[in-house]
Amino acid sequence: MSHITATYLVHDAKGNLEKKAESIALGLTVGSWTDLPVVDQEQLKKHKGEVISVEETSPSAAASHLGERKAGLIKIAYPAANFSADIPAILTTIFGKLSLDGEVKLVDIELDEALEKQFPGPQFGVDSIRTKLGVHDRPLLMSIFKGMIGRGTDLFEQQLRAQAAGGVDLVKDDEILFDNPLTPFEDRIRRGVKVLNEEYERSGHRTLYAVNLSGRTFELRDKARKAVSLGANALLFNVFAYGLDTLQSLAEDPYIDVPIMAHPAVSGALTASPLYGISNQVLLGKLLRLAGADFVLFPSPYGSVAMEKSETLAIKNALTSESRLKRAFPVPSAGIHPGLVPQLIKDFGKDSIINAGGGIHGHPGGAEAGAKAFRDAIAEVQAGGTLEDAAAKSPELEKALALWG
Amino acid sequence: MSHITATYLVHDAKGNLEKKAESIALGLTVGSWTDLPVVDQEQLKKHKGEVISVEETSPSAAASHLGERKAGLIKIAYPAANFSADIPAILTTIFGKLSLDGEVKLVDIELDEALEKQFPGPQFGVDSIRTKLGVHDRPLLMSIFKGMIGRGTDLFEQQLRAQAAGGVDLVKDDEILFDNPLTPFEDRIRRGVKVLNEEYERSGHRTLYAVNLSGRTFELRDKARKAVSLGANALLFNVFAYGLDTLQSLAEDPYIDVPIMAHPAVSGALTASPLYGISNQVLLGKLLRLAGADFVLFPSPYGSVAMEKSETLAIKNALTSESRLKRAFPVPSAGIHPGLVPQLIKDFGKDSIINAGGGIHGHPGGAEAGAKAFRDAIAEVQAGGTLEDAAAKSPELEKALALWG
Ligand SMILES: [Mg+2]
Ligand SMILES: [Mg+2]
Repeated sequence: MSHITATYLVHDAKGNLEKKAESIALGLTVGSWTDLPVVDQEQLKKHKGEVISVEETSPSAAASHLGERKAGLIKIAYPAANFSADIPAILTTIFGKLSLDGEVKLVDIELDEALEKQFPGPQFGVDSIRTKLGVHDRPLLMSIFKGMIGRGTDLFEQQLRAQAAGGVDLVKDDEILFDNPLTPFEDRIRRGVKVLNEEYERSGHRTLYAVNLSGRTFELRDKARKAVSLGANALLFNVFAYGLDTLQSLAEDPYIDVPIMAHPAVSGALTASPLYGISNQVLLGKLLRLAGADFVLFPSPYGSVAMEKSETLAIKNALTSESRLKRAFPVPSAGIHPGLVPQLIKDFGKDSIINAGGGIHGHPGGAEAGAKAFRDAIAEVQAGGTLEDAAAKSPELEKALALWG
Repeated sequence: MSHITATYLVHDAKGNLEKKAESIALGLTVGSWTDLPVVDQEQLKKHKGEVISVEETSPSAAASHLGERKAGLIKIAYPAANFSADIPAILTTIFGKLSLDGEVKLVDIELDEALEKQFPGPQFGVDSIRTKLGVHDRPLLMSIFKGMIGRGTDLFEQQLRAQAAGGVDLVKDDEILFDNPLTPFEDRIRRGVKVLNEEYERSGHRTLYAVNLSGRTFELRDKARKAVSLGANALLFNVFAYGLDTLQSLAEDPYIDVPIMAHPAVSGALTASPLYGISNQVLLGKLLRLAGADFVLFPSPYGSVAMEKSETLAIKNALTSESRLKRAFPVPSAGIHPGLVPQLIKDFGKDSIINAGGGIHGHPGGAEAGAKAFRDAIAEVQAGGTLEDAAAKSPELEKALALWG
């Protein structure tokens, strides 16, 4: 029987984890069991949730103000017969009412093959994106527009050109840049295509631009198709301000044949608490890969807006582990400067994206020099050298290291 | 200048709330300020976020494990010029990246009139729903199907008939009942219409049935229109498994002219922590009303899956306060039995919905008697009497009180 298993971290006031587990497994499926007539039990057997395991753990320090709690990991299997094969139905089943029921955090999910097959996963993934860019042997370099709110298309073109000229592989809109009269969506795409084609003609270096797909949900599909018809080659999407299923529909659409970059905006509202909500591994890792994100941004463990390193690595593993789904690129973001390149490659591997904002635009020589500093660092480290080796050959990197260490 | 203000509860490790407030106001709008040339400041003035107030509060006990923290309420105004007038753009602006930035909870929002006007609010609301039902002088009574997973349409018809016969005003699907081969969506609607029309012919009592609108996001509009064309007279929607903007689009659609009931499934993942996420007042109250929910379910403060009473009252106030938007019905749910009717009316007023599952189906005389017990209690209490007065005239209520107190 096809099913999904969900693992919950529970801090239970009553201290009876087995009972809690049973009540979840029944409450979220057939409702009751022992008091049912045998004939009903026979009929409902294939719909009944099953407790797979209950494992006591030590309570989180975050629960200390709640008084005596027994903590544990509860794993439950839910029959796929109970829900349609879409993420809203799955979330409602495994963490709908339960999300409101005290100290319960959804920390893992596993779909069996029959269920997983009904989800698209990344349409491009690591390998196709590498082919698109013609880059196979190093992490990709990404950067972002800086301070575009209230600014016009001249600055847009200028920033895009400088980033591409410095060797950036992907440039993304800021997630807070929406459709607006100064830099309208379609205008950004047209100008982006023009600038990046010119840069390609000039340098032979290919850069993708991820335009922020925003607006009303039911207009997104047509808007994305239009973007692609205008030459857009990637989309940025604030998936958690919409819904995972909307991302999936965009990914599945045959006319939206460009990679999609999932931004973590708003996701912290679901993931930040150790006691409640959904783990980063599940939300930014497994669910985004299932729904079809090709790139997943998340806070790097190094910056001021940081995520625990263990959580960033769990996201990376969920996005890139062996699976029938294509691999998505992990994009640890925020606080990234060239001095972190060895650490980034050590932690996230070659198949990740090095993404910088201030670490590129804040370079004393401007964004082009900032990008070159990163590329020089990446090339040397990837070839087995050190930052010092690289800096000796790259004045741009030398300046960056002097500034940021 | 049109704007939205957002209020955050912050537990700041650095202890400088003013600086934190300034960095939020700039970081989520124009990025930087004091280092900008005067000519740029002139251009960007109308896009700059403004700190409205910073007010120190005492730290939450939930933050005690984090060490020294300064707590405060920070209120910031964001110019509407920065975002398109849709909930995803607003959420991304006011709580996108910020949701990932440490101990910050979004606890209030206020839209000015120009911005609020761009949202539909409830299309029916309290008054039109009362007119639909012909009930003006008492809280409405709602109930839910019990244990439909794995069961067929016979049980569906039987349960619906019993609930309607007992005098229930609204019956809803369980939120975990999706489209399925045993009780398909369209079949439930057709049978629901038939049973409720028969009951109306028989008794003169009108009952609405809220069918669970589920499936893929981009199919919901057509599915809802089809439901309405088949005679559906209300929709249940797991809005937090989809997205608030999807609810808004359904509410705005002129062909989906039935009231929409928002279920809180999954919302606990965003609201449960005192330190992170979004308050119930904002998420289940203000945003659901703005997006067009006609009914909002939330855990009652009385049951085992309970919400703090202050939070339930904040939701109620957000749904029913004086505004240009119509009022939505608050539906405190879970743990409701007839003995709670006086308390429910005291806490949530006449313009609320009394919603019971086990408190109706678990009645020794069955669901019809269970519903009658509630209606008898409601009538008496609304007329100024007591439960005891009512029980003296109602054997069904007497039995219910004997069982549940
Ligand atoms: Mg950003
Ligand atoms: Mg339910």
